[in-house]
Amino acid sequence: MKKDSLSERFCPIARASFELADGWTFVILRELFMGNGKYDQLQQQTGINPRSLSNRLIHLAENGIVVKHLYSERPQRHEYHLTQKGQELWPLLMMMKSWGERWSDKWSEEDPPMRLRHGKDGHQFYPEITCRTCGEPVTAGDLRGEISQKMLQDRKHMACLNKR
Amino acid sequence: MKKDSLSERFCPIARASFELADGWTFVILRELFMGNGKYDQLQQQTGINPRSLSNRLIHLAENGIVVKHLYSERPQRHEYHLTQKGQELWPLLMMMKSWGERWSDKWSEEDPPMRLRHGKDGHQFYPEITCRTCGEPVTAGDLRGEISQKMLQDRKHMACLNKR
Repeated sequence: MKKDSLSERFCPIARASFELADGWTFVILRELFMGNGKYDQLQQQTGINPRSLSNRLIHLAENGIVVKHLYSERPQRHEYHLTQKGQELWPLLMMMKSWGERWSDKWSEEDPPMRLRHGKDGHQFYPEITCRTCGEPVTAGDLRGEISQKMLQDRKHMACLNKR
Repeated sequence: MKKDSLSERFCPIARASFELADGWTFVILRELFMGNGKYDQLQQQTGINPRSLSNRLIHLAENGIVVKHLYSERPQRHEYHLTQKGQELWPLLMMMKSWGERWSDKWSEEDPPMRLRHGKDGHQFYPEITCRTCGEPVTAGDLRGEISQKMLQDRKHMACLNKR
């Protein structure tokens, strides 16, 4: 099955995976969240070769996650900004940062590469997932999944399609 | 710069990106979170060709995210389980699901492909990020980043390395 077909799946995780493309994409998004949207900065801070970087930026633009701006006419220079859709990826990046810090002996929660401060007193921010309905902190074990009929049909279809 | 070098970077997002590899990986993780760890199930529900699927599972196992179990001797059959490190990826998957649902006209928050229920009364779960220190809901704009000295050095090093 071709990778593009991820974009045709019913599952939102599959579609999001397609739009986000691959590992490098998260490093590009990290830079955009830091406000480094100029092409040259992106290239320098990610170390991706120019051709791959351009392809990934095109993919992100096609999926409405970034927009391209001309900021200099001579020489012609572009920078990239996150759209609203792109900006709403921050919880995902945040969780990736947090997981990456936790599962490495290179950092500790107390000494992260990027400390995030919150509120007027500037206390250190650690993300926690809570339930918007009841306000309680939530872990995976607290949730029960209920699969929809359409999703179930899609899964049956996949099982049939890929039967060996 | 080779993709593998992502694993050598100081930034936790870069390292996490390397460990998670590419878009297909999230679809594999989705299946593992649903308890579908048998190789054949994984193949059927993701539609990834067997060679790519095996490569991705090896990559996840090498990075301590999944473990392989033999569940049948004849015929020889394997299944994959999430380790503790793997299980702690659920907030990331959750945020991906949520973002994917929000930015598509295929679903609505009220009619998701997988409804998640929380608490004894089974109310619908919507994820919200809060600050563990003060308990308040947080959005990107509420946070101020403070980059560490080591991270700053790493960024200067990258800029120097990739100067054109």
